[in-house]
Amino acid sequence: MTAHKTLDPTNDPALRSWIDGANDAHADFPIQNIPFGVFRRAGTKEIARCCTAVGGTVIDLSALHESGLFEGSLIAGQNVFALPTLNEFMAMGRPAWRSARERIIELFLEGSSKVRDHAALRERALVPLARAEMLLPAEIGDYTDFYASVHHATNVGSMFRPDNPLLPNYKHVPIGYHGRASSVVVSGSPVRRPLGQTKADDAAAPSFGPSRLLDHELEVGFFVGPGNRLGEPIDIDAAPDHIFGVCLVNDWSARDIQKWEYQPLGPFLAKNFATTVSPWIVTLDALRPYRLPGPYRAEGDPAPLAYLTPTLKDEAWAIDLTLEVLIASVKMREKGLAPARVSIGSFRDMFWTITQMLTHHASNGCNLRPGDLMASGTVSGTTKESRGCMLERTWRGSEPIALPTGESRKFLEDGDEVIIRGWCENGTARRIGLGECRGVVTPAPTSSR
Amino acid sequence: MTAHKTLDPTNDPALRSWIDGANDAHADFPIQNIPFGVFRRAGTKEIARCCTAVGGTVIDLSALHESGLFEGSLIAGQNVFALPTLNEFMAMGRPAWRSARERIIELFLEGSSKVRDHAALRERALVPLARAEMLLPAEIGDYTDFYASVHHATNVGSMFRPDNPLLPNYKHVPIGYHGRASSVVVSGSPVRRPLGQTKADDAAAPSFGPSRLLDHELEVGFFVGPGNRLGEPIDIDAAPDHIFGVCLVNDWSARDIQKWEYQPLGPFLAKNFATTVSPWIVTLDALRPYRLPGPYRAEGDPAPLAYLTPTLKDEAWAIDLTLEVLIASVKMREKGLAPARVSIGSFRDMFWTITQMLTHHASNGCNLRPGDLMASGTVSGTTKESRGCMLERTWRGSEPIALPTGESRKFLEDGDEVIIRGWCENGTARRIGLGECRGVVTPAPTSSR
Repeated sequence: MTAHKTLDPTNDPALRSWIDGANDAHADFPIQNIPFGVFRRAGTKEIARCCTAVGGTVIDLSALHESGLFEGSLIAGQNVFALPTLNEFMAMGRPAWRSARERIIELFLEGSSKVRDHAALRERALVPLARAEMLLPAEIGDYTDFYASVHHATNVGSMFRPDNPLLPNYKHVPIGYHGRASSVVVSGSPVRRPLGQTKADDAAAPSFGPSRLLDHELEVGFFVGPGNRLGEPIDIDAAPDHIFGVCLVNDWSARDIQKWEYQPLGPFLAKNFATTVSPWIVTLDALRPYRLPGPYRAEGDPAPLAYLTPTLKDEAWAIDLTLEVLIASVKMREKGLAPARVSIGSFRDMFWTITQMLTHHASNGCNLRPGDLMASGTVSGTTKESRGCMLERTWRGSEPIALPTGESRKFLEDGDEVIIRGWCENGTARRIGLGECRGVVTPAPTSSR
Repeated sequence: MTAHKTLDPTNDPALRSWIDGANDAHADFPIQNIPFGVFRRAGTKEIARCCTAVGGTVIDLSALHESGLFEGSLIAGQNVFALPTLNEFMAMGRPAWRSARERIIELFLEGSSKVRDHAALRERALVPLARAEMLLPAEIGDYTDFYASVHHATNVGSMFRPDNPLLPNYKHVPIGYHGRASSVVVSGSPVRRPLGQTKADDAAAPSFGPSRLLDHELEVGFFVGPGNRLGEPIDIDAAPDHIFGVCLVNDWSARDIQKWEYQPLGPFLAKNFATTVSPWIVTLDALRPYRLPGPYRAEGDPAPLAYLTPTLKDEAWAIDLTLEVLIASVKMREKGLAPARVSIGSFRDMFWTITQMLTHHASNGCNLRPGDLMASGTVSGTTKESRGCMLERTWRGSEPIALPTGESRKFLEDGDEVIIRGWCENGTARRIGLGECRGVVTPAPTSSR
């Protein structure tokens, strides 16, 4: 194995791959991306292992490692890709991630023959995306959800407190709360409508039954790499080294359960019945060309406190990431109609960045662990189209969304599929996609009580 | 091995053990208790394993299993006690727990010779409590904290909303929120005072620094046994089969951070810097004589909805469990003074039972997993002495507590040790203790920002 050359980690748009589909202008997974995931061949009971995707192909990184193709890199030695989660790889830190990513790019570049001309290895390591069953990429120790869009917070607040939509702490504190780790599922998993307690404004008492106001929430998630010891905060300048990469998240929400339960300790059963994540985690290295210098601030907004203010200007991590939500009803799918877009927005409009969220989380000494998931909260912008959940998009159901079948939606119906997509594109660097995060709503169980 | 006789699972007070201290009237761990924990010999790097305690002795259950002493019981076969957590044993379900407990009782009863007369095994399996390092008893997938004391909710509510202390949902919904699993630590672990954002009422802007209003919260925790599949609720009549046992919990809280951050999504950094649990989990079988027919309700309180109402009357799980909090300052420890009691109350005063908490948690299909921890929220009663946290006990600092050294406390100071104890005693059945949950407050880190 020759020593590998160091590629520009900031995404060189000239690079091309010998893998089918990787050089298409609209590919989510060009050679510059190298997202990480976990898979097995569909229809088998194989032990899951770590992978990447290039073009329309899943690449079994465990097989590459067994073939010695990571020799000389920082992940030579134990084959961490043979494990059924990315946690160990996440724990290794950014130099290891970068070394692995650069080696993978090198192997699949146009002209690179080590895998291309090795038929047995190609057969073993390359699997068409359609024949891969993608699994949860990490064992998630803790899942935390933030509330980092000021536009979302203002919209939701104005429905409940028209005169005082935004609480006084919002522009100082990256508001977050703990979610449920056990019910985080991977894209494609069905999501069952929850039962729960709700109370109509004019009812004397609450009742128990299926939620009638089921909603999606368009969010961006990120996975923690190396953690910190309990009691030891993380400096914001070090925060990017603790973030493995980002994914798409649908934080399903039952608005009627939420309204009745959330005071005074926050959302609980309204949220913890399911959270869907996309299977691919895109590293910060792949996203570097899409960094923006600072998060969204309006005239007169206060500056963040010092512990939330990076001093390394190159490590400002607002991200120019376009996000959309689409819905396909049963009828639409039966008629072969394409999913209908219901929102399109950008992660650049967030009030707090992912590094601020992570730093705030650890600022009290709370220990983060490799594989922990944090999510941004609903991503909404200033326009109607950029509102990332049905609650905002239909303004509590008062402005239903028309679907191409003539159906309309205030909230989600059984059988609806919600699809979230995300991508970075700026005309200069290579397009980087996050793939998709999908889920179909299935009917609530019948309550025996 | 002869077939073992079925002992009365409801705690026979006549049973006596050959183990030192087990027959003392005030022992926490008589032969009728058989709590479960995880330990290694203090000062060693041994692999941790599962244990019980009888009198003042830790008993290595893995060693008993290796010696064939569980043959014929439901836990014969794989030695689940050789694992460094109780999760696998918890997953086996109540028949297995009961079978193990009965076998252990049989082995340590007065007159039972299998262990007593086997010097090598005794040497290997029996360790004085003082020479055991107790560890976290389970790998906790998710930690959920409830708010199940109506007296606590009313006290805290009245400080902030004098005219409307209790919110309208309280008597219908077992209010809970997700806590942080990573920062759950075992009794004896130091607890570092957190840094955080706080804002004085008269300050123009928040500032960042050490919390000045650090508090303990006296709680009872319980660990989940067999879980449920995502999307499939647990019927309340089945709930006791999903609860492995109970422990003591100190849900440390930074009141100044909490006040500034908790709107609108609930407590976050004010709580997740540490949660301490006692090392011993006491099974529901051991607690059966201390069940009470129903939770606390005042005249005119609404009946719980059907999904929270057990139909098996024998499975009502209000528990007659006495709880106390003690504090020992540095000065008190230097002078050799005993810890001073600051609260004493009872778990019987809770508005919601542990089975209602578990059933509510899974009612929306949220999947619980073996080893998940739930806690009750602060246990407070109707009297001043029964208030389970400093916030209530000193009424926000307005009624400081005097310590025997002449010191006084509004909230916790660096160096203070907080000790929680719990026991069941009714003059009929054998006393069952939960042991202790301890933690010393250490100084905040110096912030570099």
